[in-house]
Amino acid sequence: MTLPQADESAPAGGMLIVAERINASRRAIRGALEAMDAGAIQREATAQAAAGAHYIDVNAGTFPGREAELLCWLVDVVQAATPLPLCLDCPDPAALAAALPRVKAPRPIINSINLEDDRFDRVLPLVRDFGAKVVALAQGQGVPPTTADGKADLAARLVERLVAAGVPLDDIYVDPLVFPVGVDPRSALATIDAIGEIMHRFPGVHTICGLTNVSHGLPARALVNRTFLVAAMGRGMDAAIIDPTDAHLMAAMRAAQAVLGRDEYCMAFIEEFMAGRVAA
Amino acid sequence: MTLPQADESAPAGGMLIVAERINASRRAIRGALEAMDAGAIQREATAQAAAGAHYIDVNAGTFPGREAELLCWLVDVVQAATPLPLCLDCPDPAALAAALPRVKAPRPIINSINLEDDRFDRVLPLVRDFGAKVVALAQGQGVPPTTADGKADLAARLVERLVAAGVPLDDIYVDPLVFPVGVDPRSALATIDAIGEIMHRFPGVHTICGLTNVSHGLPARALVNRTFLVAAMGRGMDAAIIDPTDAHLMAAMRAAQAVLGRDEYCMAFIEEFMAGRVAA
Repeated sequence: MTLPQADESAPAGGMLIVAERINASRRAIRGALEAMDAGAIQREATAQAAAGAHYIDVNAGTFPGREAELLCWLVDVVQAATPLPLCLDCPDPAALAAALPRVKAPRPIINSINLEDDRFDRVLPLVRDFGAKVVALAQGQGVPPTTADGKADLAARLVERLVAAGVPLDDIYVDPLVFPVGVDPRSALATIDAIGEIMHRFPGVHTICGLTNVSHGLPARALVNRTFLVAAMGRGMDAAIIDPTDAHLMAAMRAAQAVLGRDEYCMAFIEEFMAGRVAA
Repeated sequence: MTLPQADESAPAGGMLIVAERINASRRAIRGALEAMDAGAIQREATAQAAAGAHYIDVNAGTFPGREAELLCWLVDVVQAATPLPLCLDCPDPAALAAALPRVKAPRPIINSINLEDDRFDRVLPLVRDFGAKVVALAQGQGVPPTTADGKADLAARLVERLVAAGVPLDDIYVDPLVFPVGVDPRSALATIDAIGEIMHRFPGVHTICGLTNVSHGLPARALVNRTFLVAAMGRGMDAAIIDPTDAHLMAAMRAAQAVLGRDEYCMAFIEEFMAGRVAA
């Protein structure tokens, strides 16, 4: 079964925004899942859609034995609130397989595949059968690489395997992973350099990151996160898993699109500013 | 005469901050120059020093026939207020030649030299005779290049001529120039890419930019400026001509140093935050 190939809502050349707030690692979402509180989930979905999300990430966490049930519930609940496509954020292929048939148009992102044998072999058929986009983590059997070359090489192997299996480059979002810069001062630069290398080696592929890991343990985390976002965009990153209700983050992203030549004559930036949506 | 080779005040590996506010293009400074109001100039100097400047830029503008006199006056007045080194910002070799002997320790930056025959030939001896650092503009006889390759190639010719003339790479700050991104959407990315190329081709050289041109004609200019700064730092830029009293700009710069591995274990960032100097 292939899902309908609707146009995605991301602007041409612009950043793809995957909205991260419906994640069981957040206490409020964990509570809403435990209580099956659809209203609380739907308020997060509509708030993120209104703030400019292109995809709504849904992460049901790891409730023992209930992964599939809760992921399916999230998919149903979010789709009842917004027509935006979903990003199914789940390491468990069985839960993904249960949830994917419930996804309405447009086609989702599967978050994620990596080079672990079992994960790769079980997620790949889902990507193909559902015509899904996929987040490809620079992660194999062992410890994830921490250098730019290590990340880029592992990502290259994963991209090559996906392409050989028939997944279009345009459907692949490579995530080179980011670790706390307060623990390893060179880790964020390694991720940023890997992004540049991957975008150079595979024209047409996409790169994506979550931001929040980078600032773990530091003060002024939102500032650190948006600074990392801008630096990564400067190397070509064209998607991000972020909180679109963070006005300063969105302003930095929009300014970066203007500065980096992804916003012709800064028209989108000026329009957002006129609409009061650029927190300066 | 070679000026004393004092240690510069920029932290190892950190951004060199050249403070831009004493510039005759600003109405208040032009007025202070016309009135010879030393107090107004000195308040700008001490405010910028307190805000974290490493060099104080002095620009006396183009008062017909008075360039040398006013530049000398600025040098004297600023040095009476702060021990920070100066960046002599003046296109006129005669005015530079008049002002340089008045400069006390440590040695100044001459801002700037370029590849125009007359300017190169007249500024180079000043750089050598005074052991000065120098801003090298990617600018020749004709229209300045607008592509990354054009900027990098012109900069490379200038760096090679300076090095051949005995100027150490470590004393050269290449400025690839930045133009309004609202006029040419690819101009800022060209500058950023040129920075990456120059830092790659000449290990040990420095790159520097003013920021304010990039946002000319746009709203939320301070946001656009600091976004450009972060993206340029992501490609290796290690100096900037900025307003250090802009707290959000300085916060972005400090966060970028942390994210880009130029601040071991983010200690400087955390210290600045604890001191209340990170506007988040």
